[in-house]
Amino acid sequence: MPSYKAPVDDVRFLLNDVFNFDKYNNLAGFSDAPADVRDAIIDEAAKFAEQVLQPLNRVGDLEGCRRGDDGSVTTPTGFREAFRQLAEGGWLGLVTPAAYGGQGLPQTLAQVVGEFLISANMAFSMYSGLTQGAVAALLVHGSEAQKKAFIPNMVAGKWAGTMNLTEPHCGTDLGLLRTKAVKQADGSYRISGTKIFISGGEQDLTENIIHLVLARIEGAAAGVRGISLFVVPKVQVKPDGSLGARNGVSCGAIEHKMGIHGNSTCVMNYDNAAGWLVGEENKGLNAMFVMMNEARLGVGVQGLAQSEVAYQNAASYARERLQGRALSGAAAPDKPADPIIVHPDVRRTLLQIRAFNEAARAMMVWLSLKSDVAHRSEDAREREAADDILGLCIPVLKGVLTDNGFANTVAAQQVWGGHGYIAENGMEQFVRDARIAMIYEGANGIQALDLVGRKLPRDKGRAVAAFFAEVGSFVTENAGVEVMAPFVAPLGKSLGHLQTATQWLMQNGATRPDNAGAGAADYMHLFGLVTFGYMWGLMVKAAQQKLRDGASAHLTTKLVTAKVFVERMLPETAAHLARIQAGAGTLMELPADEF
Amino acid sequence: MPSYKAPVDDVRFLLNDVFNFDKYNNLAGFSDAPADVRDAIIDEAAKFAEQVLQPLNRVGDLEGCRRGDDGSVTTPTGFREAFRQLAEGGWLGLVTPAAYGGQGLPQTLAQVVGEFLISANMAFSMYSGLTQGAVAALLVHGSEAQKKAFIPNMVAGKWAGTMNLTEPHCGTDLGLLRTKAVKQADGSYRISGTKIFISGGEQDLTENIIHLVLARIEGAAAGVRGISLFVVPKVQVKPDGSLGARNGVSCGAIEHKMGIHGNSTCVMNYDNAAGWLVGEENKGLNAMFVMMNEARLGVGVQGLAQSEVAYQNAASYARERLQGRALSGAAAPDKPADPIIVHPDVRRTLLQIRAFNEAARAMMVWLSLKSDVAHRSEDAREREAADDILGLCIPVLKGVLTDNGFANTVAAQQVWGGHGYIAENGMEQFVRDARIAMIYEGANGIQALDLVGRKLPRDKGRAVAAFFAEVGSFVTENAGVEVMAPFVAPLGKSLGHLQTATQWLMQNGATRPDNAGAGAADYMHLFGLVTFGYMWGLMVKAAQQKLRDGASAHLTTKLVTAKVFVERMLPETAAHLARIQAGAGTLMELPADEF
Repeated sequence: MPSYKAPVDDVRFLLNDVFNFDKYNNLAGFSDAPADVRDAIIDEAAKFAEQVLQPLNRVGDLEGCRRGDDGSVTTPTGFREAFRQLAEGGWLGLVTPAAYGGQGLPQTLAQVVGEFLISANMAFSMYSGLTQGAVAALLVHGSEAQKKAFIPNMVAGKWAGTMNLTEPHCGTDLGLLRTKAVKQADGSYRISGTKIFISGGEQDLTENIIHLVLARIEGAAAGVRGISLFVVPKVQVKPDGSLGARNGVSCGAIEHKMGIHGNSTCVMNYDNAAGWLVGEENKGLNAMFVMMNEARLGVGVQGLAQSEVAYQNAASYARERLQGRALSGAAAPDKPADPIIVHPDVRRTLLQIRAFNEAARAMMVWLSLKSDVAHRSEDAREREAADDILGLCIPVLKGVLTDNGFANTVAAQQVWGGHGYIAENGMEQFVRDARIAMIYEGANGIQALDLVGRKLPRDKGRAVAAFFAEVGSFVTENAGVEVMAPFVAPLGKSLGHLQTATQWLMQNGATRPDNAGAGAADYMHLFGLVTFGYMWGLMVKAAQQKLRDGASAHLTTKLVTAKVFVERMLPETAAHLARIQAGAGTLMELPADEF
Repeated sequence: MPSYKAPVDDVRFLLNDVFNFDKYNNLAGFSDAPADVRDAIIDEAAKFAEQVLQPLNRVGDLEGCRRGDDGSVTTPTGFREAFRQLAEGGWLGLVTPAAYGGQGLPQTLAQVVGEFLISANMAFSMYSGLTQGAVAALLVHGSEAQKKAFIPNMVAGKWAGTMNLTEPHCGTDLGLLRTKAVKQADGSYRISGTKIFISGGEQDLTENIIHLVLARIEGAAAGVRGISLFVVPKVQVKPDGSLGARNGVSCGAIEHKMGIHGNSTCVMNYDNAAGWLVGEENKGLNAMFVMMNEARLGVGVQGLAQSEVAYQNAASYARERLQGRALSGAAAPDKPADPIIVHPDVRRTLLQIRAFNEAARAMMVWLSLKSDVAHRSEDAREREAADDILGLCIPVLKGVLTDNGFANTVAAQQVWGGHGYIAENGMEQFVRDARIAMIYEGANGIQALDLVGRKLPRDKGRAVAAFFAEVGSFVTENAGVEVMAPFVAPLGKSLGHLQTATQWLMQNGATRPDNAGAGAADYMHLFGLVTFGYMWGLMVKAAQQKLRDGASAHLTTKLVTAKVFVERMLPETAAHLARIQAGAGTLMELPADEF
């Protein structure tokens, strides 16, 4: 059975030493989370993840969710009680303003807690994650009455929330959606249509479910300009806040999936369900886009979280499994064989995963802080600058963390040899669970197109120019620092590759858009490597400064892991650049029926 | 539901045009397979795979195998009848000599047929594949009496065969094995111990199962030098060939695995089971090694086969799924959206899989022909030369085809978006099934070590020198041919990377063996890319020659796919070389408990 230990030391190092959390004390909520409060939150979250959620991870995979003939859905044994504890512990309302029953703490803290929960039990964490997403959407776009009616009960864990976008014939291309809304005399709407892939669409954890649903108002324009957002409670809510009649929405089926079995993925049938407009008519997609950064950040963290827990279990197996001898001669001559961690190839596998995990975690914190600044700063220019970087880097984080996070679960499984293929050992579940994160919340190919097609050119490239300036300054400032040089020189080179690629795309994408599409995935990964290189630079700098106060194993390991990144992973930027420059020509030569 | 169409045209192109099958007519069996016979075999195999095996693939995944309380195992619905048809069609004895009931045809034909069967139903194909492996072992090492007693019934599909190597505490390191054999007065042995991960260890397809078992004779040396090979029938065979009493071997459990559910993976308990020595005492591991090339070739083909069927289903989905518009403007303005195959990123994904599949298939045929020459030529030097290349390239084929074959199933699944994650659509089964091939028959890290540690230095590097000479001559001979230059110039460059890496490993591996271990996986993939580049060179040359007789879509597509390989995949050799040259230093710095 796999185990999990939340990386609390690494989180503290990032918050305190690398990103200087306390310097954001001018932002709302930050002064409520000084070091001792943060420590307590982190430790409690770790305990909850390790002791309550992790033991339910395999149970959830084995049992899955079951739909009854009446359309009800039963979640795996223990999920109900765990969800109750999650709500009681206040974890659902960490960032929600106090006015709606939350604690108003920084988004950054919610993300580091989120990583722990997802590592422990990804399928379970989706029930709360989507509820928090629905709360965020209502906070930004809901009327005051809607916020009051729904959010406090969602934060308290009495009600949950879902997002209903996809239909059988449309996922990426929401302009095709058919679910319709008919306006009623009382100002409400009647919603009819079929939604698929609705995570937590039906469950037995909460007494009500607040569905946020994209639909087209009768007579609205075709395409994305005719889509509106509605709130559709499973059970109607009376004016006094008590529950009324069952609404016309039901779970028609649950999907049999590769993984995340513990989360119910539902086909939702809307049959004249009563719904209420959220925000303005025909602006539903905008409403969704506003909260997309946070949702994609959350999915990116799923990639990291599965990679982290897979790493831990691969490392512990490698320390214990006795098989063969070290190439340099027996390391444990008193034992029948050496532990396989003596082998450079096993160490390479583990250290590359670790070099990813720690950079990804740093990127998560870095961007979460940007998100906090973008939402909470009182300085409009500061907000704009933070939002620029956030918007630019979010598709990178989502695509790169989930692509590599998945690949890392596969690599970690490989360390277990044949035993990694056996369900009881849990390594293969990490692979199956992590796989979905590359797909949903915008498949990674779409993230790459968003980066290249929308985020790069936006505001005449203001965001990417700011990113180059930030990383470029770090390189320049540290190039002369002896202990930093081995890390920043390669970073400078890779930054050059990224700048060349950016120019190439701007020029060649303008003359032929397919050139941008052909290079998008490589560009996203090139961008990710440079960002990771920057994160490693920041971490090395913080570690070097701390080392002056005395050595520690954590800091030494940090520096070795940084070297692995620079030696083995960062140089890949050259190959990405070459592939981008290959352009679209060859790819577009064949007619469709020759594939 | 996924579908499958065997790539018969591509196989014919390889056999007839690229590798000139008929020039091997001096070898036993080849003249029995002229073009019309080959065509008939290929077409019949395609039909059997497409019509009988493929429809059972999802059934096998859903039902899995069930063990009864009596230790019997029930295979999925339809497998019994399909196995009967497989035997009746003569597919089990394609290469077995006529003296033992087979047809004595070339190994090369069996491999191309094997690819079809595995694409259609990997779990099913393992029952026959392991039976053929056991037959091969008996052919090489068994006594005449053993061959007569077992092989004809195995070829006829009345009996099946298995390989019993792994034990709970030892997989890679067989020197640790504990299963013991006690010699009896009649010359037989009593075998006792527990074997795990035994594919087809128990099943209901055949009336008997012939287990080949590695065990240590009482009093034999510790380690690999004390291991012997035994044949242990599930049901004892009387001198007249009829079945006798049940032997002391039984299935104690079946594993719950990530994939290949249709194949029973058994824990086998040997309790004083009657067994007979195969070959010499204490030479059991040698006996296994002799047949390892063919077994690893077969597992490598599993990687290719899953990649091929995943490709086909991704391509057909991409042609049909309407979503969004082409970046260059609507391609199907009469439809609500364009098929996603208009997108360069989707084409890139598909063409890279295809460029792998076709090179991998060529490599399979190339090495199968080497195997045929190594076993059937009457010229000792020819046999040695063929065996050199075969031994050198087999770990490359096994590791590279299964690593990339798996990655390709993941990429193909991604083309399906959210629908790829749903079990009913079958794409996720390809991923789960393909995953095992990276692990068994020597995990890919072991393949890399075999290549670097054993195959490179063997006979003072004779094999790798021959490989360099073969590829080098091809580059030199075609460098001046105008239509070939765009393909051989990059190949020459990548061959240079491989030669540099080889020298680096020989020098730095000698002074510090961990340097060889640290670079092994990258070296294996670098070697694979160069081999693929060579295969593409051979295919392009054959296609160019054929094009003089008239254009065809197949040949044009071949040339476009070759360009994709050269533009986007072959250049990766530079990054592999750089990582190899990074050496083991950083990887070995940390103590084990810091992981």
